Amino acid sequence: MKMIIQIFFILSLVSSISFASVQDFCVADPKGPQSPSGYSCKDPEQVTENDFAFSGLAKAGNTSNIIKAAVTPAFAPAFAGTNGLGVSLARLDLAGGGVIPLHTHPGASEALVVIQGTICAGFISSANKVYLKTLNRGDSMIFPQGLLHFQLNSGKGPALAFVAFGSSSPGLQILPFALFANDLPSELVEATTFLSDEEVKKLKGVLGGTN
Amino acid sequence: MKMIIQIFFILSLVSSISFASVQDFCVADPKGPQSPSGYSCKDPEQVTENDFAFSGLAKAGNTSNIIKAAVTPAFAPAFAGTNGLGVSLARLDLAGGGVIPLHTHPGASEALVVIQGTICAGFISSANKVYLKTLNRGDSMIFPQGLLHFQLNSGKGPALAFVAFGSSSPGLQILPFALFANDLPSELVEATTFLSDEEVKKLKGVLGGTN
Amino acid sequence: MKMIIQIFFILSLVSSISFASVQDFCVADPKGPQSPSGYSCKDPEQVTENDFAFSGLAKAGNTSNIIKAAVTPAFAPAFAGTNGLGVSLARLDLAGGGVIPLHTHPGASEALVVIQGTICAGFISSANKVYLKTLNRGDSMIFPQGLLHFQLNSGKGPALAFVAFGSSSPGLQILPFALFANDLPSELVEATTFLSDEEVKKLKGVLGGTN
Amino acid sequence: MKMIIQIFFILSLVSSISFASVQDFCVADPKGPQSPSGYSCKDPEQVTENDFAFSGLAKAGNTSNIIKAAVTPAFAPAFAGTNGLGVSLARLDLAGGGVIPLHTHPGASEALVVIQGTICAGFISSANKVYLKTLNRGDSMIFPQGLLHFQLNSGKGPALAFVAFGSSSPGLQILPFALFANDLPSELVEATTFLSDEEVKKLKGVLGGTN
Amino acid sequence: MKMIIQIFFILSLVSSISFASVQDFCVADPKGPQSPSGYSCKDPEQVTENDFAFSGLAKAGNTSNIIKAAVTPAFAPAFAGTNGLGVSLARLDLAGGGVIPLHTHPGASEALVVIQGTICAGFISSANKVYLKTLNRGDSMIFPQGLLHFQLNSGKGPALAFVAFGSSSPGLQILPFALFANDLPSELVEATTFLSDEEVKKLKGVLGGTN
Amino acid sequence: MKMIIQIFFILSLVSSISFASVQDFCVADPKGPQSPSGYSCKDPEQVTENDFAFSGLAKAGNTSNIIKAAVTPAFAPAFAGTNGLGVSLARLDLAGGGVIPLHTHPGASEALVVIQGTICAGFISSANKVYLKTLNRGDSMIFPQGLLHFQLNSGKGPALAFVAFGSSSPGLQILPFALFANDLPSELVEATTFLSDEEVKKLKGVLGGTN
Repeated sequence: MKMIIQIFFILSLVSSISFASVQDFCVADPKGPQSPSGYSCKDPEQVTENDFAFSGLAKAGNTSNIIKAAVTPAFAPAFAGTNGLGVSLARLDLAGGGVIPLHTHPGASEALVVIQGTICAGFISSANKVYLKTLNRGDSMIFPQGLLHFQLNSGKGPALAFVAFGSSSPGLQILPFALFANDLPSELVEATTFLSDEEVKKLKGVLGGTN
Repeated sequence: MKMIIQIFFILSLVSSISFASVQDFCVADPKGPQSPSGYSCKDPEQVTENDFAFSGLAKAGNTSNIIKAAVTPAFAPAFAGTNGLGVSLARLDLAGGGVIPLHTHPGASEALVVIQGTICAGFISSANKVYLKTLNRGDSMIFPQGLLHFQLNSGKGPALAFVAFGSSSPGLQILPFALFANDLPSELVEATTFLSDEEVKKLKGVLGGTN
Repeated sequence: MKMIIQIFFILSLVSSISFASVQDFCVADPKGPQSPSGYSCKDPEQVTENDFAFSGLAKAGNTSNIIKAAVTPAFAPAFAGTNGLGVSLARLDLAGGGVIPLHTHPGASEALVVIQGTICAGFISSANKVYLKTLNRGDSMIFPQGLLHFQLNSGKGPALAFVAFGSSSPGLQILPFALFANDLPSELVEATTFLSDEEVKKLKGVLGGTN
Repeated sequence: MKMIIQIFFILSLVSSISFASVQDFCVADPKGPQSPSGYSCKDPEQVTENDFAFSGLAKAGNTSNIIKAAVTPAFAPAFAGTNGLGVSLARLDLAGGGVIPLHTHPGASEALVVIQGTICAGFISSANKVYLKTLNRGDSMIFPQGLLHFQLNSGKGPALAFVAFGSSSPGLQILPFALFANDLPSELVEATTFLSDEEVKKLKGVLGGTN
Repeated sequence: MKMIIQIFFILSLVSSISFASVQDFCVADPKGPQSPSGYSCKDPEQVTENDFAFSGLAKAGNTSNIIKAAVTPAFAPAFAGTNGLGVSLARLDLAGGGVIPLHTHPGASEALVVIQGTICAGFISSANKVYLKTLNRGDSMIFPQGLLHFQLNSGKGPALAFVAFGSSSPGLQILPFALFANDLPSELVEATTFLSDEEVKKLKGVLGGTN
Repeated sequence: MKMIIQIFFILSLVSSISFASVQDFCVADPKGPQSPSGYSCKDPEQVTENDFAFSGLAKAGNTSNIIKAAVTPAFAPAFAGTNGLGVSLARLDLAGGGVIPLHTHPGASEALVVIQGTICAGFISSANKVYLKTLNRGDSMIFPQGLLHFQLNSGKGPALAFVAFGSSSPGLQILPFALFANDLPSELVEATTFLSDEEVKKLKGVLGGTN
């Protein structure tokens, strides 16, 4: 008799909990419509532990490139479980001399922790003040939302850092690419940056920009 | 007798409303401590209609400068009544040939409406795509939070626009000033933007930067 | 060789940026499902510069009506690019003697700037205190979220103002229409406003209300 | 030995927890400065269980007044523990024939549950549509943020309801008091509501307004 | 003639209001996709007053179970009108000796008001401090977001309380069920709680857990 | 002459920027009043690069304790620069056999990345479903806000992970300490968890609880 009551209880609890459980999480379903708050939620019945784990940060990014560096993001929807949960990650690999160029994250602040090597990092405030630190293994730094910042390998060997964002979609606008890797007319780049025509055209050439 | 009841009622209502009225607004008290949500609130007893009005946008900004343009902000605490209310304003004056250089607002999106003249405005997305429009009197445009954008007088006479932000403290980071008007070492500017040493030093000279 | 590396770099950057760019903006797709955060996002591939611009505020609203005034909103989805970006606009035209009746915006505070003429504007706080200002060209004023406010042409000629909201869907509840332009039974209007039966029925007649 | 380790552990845990505990809650300190996010936090060392409890809703409000009704709020700072926690309460007492006049809460939506009696409640949307329900004991209703709504005792005996708000400072603007219980000039009330001069002056007389 | 103008006015107002009315509310459509901000919105044309009312709290929950208590939630989508509005309700029934076991609401703070009987309620802070109150009819208490708390009938007869949450999807994680009513391996439960194998297996047996 | 204009320009820009820069960041001033949004802001004039960096995560936590593990938080105000920026960090050290017991963060979701070793991590949803993963170096996992979760060293050597939170004050409630390391009366623990009196008293003894 007691067992029957208990089973009844468990079932009744489960039914009331089914109302409550809906918004514990909202694993990104990249095929559904997006909203200002993020991706559509995958059917909770289809969600598994794999939606909450991500192995894409385990492998070093390819640093055989012009900046000798790589950013590997773990944002939604790549890391589907982060959708709507207000936090995400990325991995920074910097070979010797590598640099993550000046960039902003329009949608979130960033916290960085150095895992290997030495990184010179900095950001510039709205008042044009520069905040610059040399960070060693285990050191962390915070970059306020939307401000220009950079990370540069200032040590001898390769450097590795993990960064976290207070959003599952922080965005990433890399300054030299925003300026020189698109079809924004050179004269507009020049007028809005004070850079010379020669400089703008040279960098458009290097980075694949046109116009 | 009825009148007495009514007066009693009014008084009792007023006392209950005194609980409720506290957070209708929070006029900035620049002398109090700030918090992540904004300025301290001025004593409600001291608040007058003047705290909710601002005449600072009535006068054209001084455009006798290198950019032939001026930005006049009406953010908190200059426009004290906006504090915490999630919206603020600014005035853009552009003389002939004037330009508001590439800049970002780390804390809010911007909506612009042209009052006079013709403005060529644009922004660049995280995907490096350029969205460019020529705007005439009465035309409006939206610039998403944290993305690089600019406004340029592309007409013959002076241009005037008002802009609004979805925050009382949107911030304002002007790109050439962030790059060249401070003590960020030239070698760091160069490494993080791909600009040449010559260009960086020239613009540091023009804009007052050091190092 | 260097060029090949650069092209590789550009491509790899583009692929990582494709994760990041998703939530720079969420242009309203009025045909998709809505969520509490706003409209569904239009396919980013289909978004153009026209989604971020709006010409609907360029033309004066029709003031040949009972209030000699017009409100022209530029909210989502009319101004699709504002969706989810936390700011929107509207245009107020007031002919001589025109008035925007007492109204509230349930979802945002409002900032107003006068472009032409003289406007007497005011709002009423929860404590029933009235904040009243006469505003001339270039003057601005802030109206806290959800509070009753009005704008009235107190000058001689027509008046024009632009207003901004800290939301892409601020809402708009116009008091006399909420009271008298629907089927709310007269006896309920009377009981909940203290207005007389005669007055309620007269205004229901004028504004098209029933019951 | 094991005990020593355990005590060490407890102490070390406590020290790390002291960082974490700061923002579990922020009990209102009405004497400190306010911010847009609410009241200053009382020193956590001084917080007791009494800050999280409130007995002010236990007693019926005084309904011997013109509306035969009373609203007893449990907002911050009266109910200090609610500060910043995003939920608060109020008690509605309606004697026979009692009514809570049309009002709005600028800062939060409201959920109501009827404890005793029968209440006719309704709200009006921005589209001027009326949503009206007769609620009996145990029935609940939701009123969206910032929209005009009312509650009226439509039963025979007294009615009691508790209401909840999604903010610790929802605000409360009661329409007839906003219109008639202050110094807003009659001519402005009339121009912005379409009410007649006679009606406005009569109600200003009843509710204590001037001008 | 005047009537024609008025009708014109009403129509023009209605058209401008149709932009504004969209986000007054977002009644849950459980069949549409969910987003991090909640359920899809039901077509506003299909929304009726019944979407904003809920009778499910009128009936006592079934307390013939192991805890002699019942929680009846009125969250979205059960109470569809609450979706996205930031407040929801639940009903607590506690028979003599009944208890709502230790639980958390991951998504919102809770405010409780006692309607009948005597309830001993408490919560535990991050600093492991216990805040405990005995509440009688009309007493209210606040439980900060995410903290463990409980309610226990400490009176002689049955107890009834209504609780409110600052979210339409507060969630509900009941501690003994989280620990013992699933397939979390006993050895993991033990390692992460310090409970004994015997105790864990006994309670898994009682509550239907496996492994 | 041109130089004079330029200097004038720089000065005028600086003055307008001084309005804008206020809320780029809000470095915690632990001596000022707190608000629901966080700590008071340190005087911007006193802020240096050191406020944005933190070396406290560089050193392994002391794992010579009952759980063979340590959590080293980098929340506000310890890491003052994170205040109000919506992201913070912590370091997890797990010696062989170490475990971070079941715990919740009431104020934020958590993202973890494994730096060394092998960690078995899991969380339990409101629906009592268990999501369990074994994570190796470089693997990451997300734990939704407010849900019970744990991390356990399931490898042979020591393990190290960094975790990030979507808040500068995520909070930390460790389950066995919340239950057994305070003065919550044993009978209340038992009634609200279903644990036996014997078990509760044993663990209160181990963890320093009373009553």
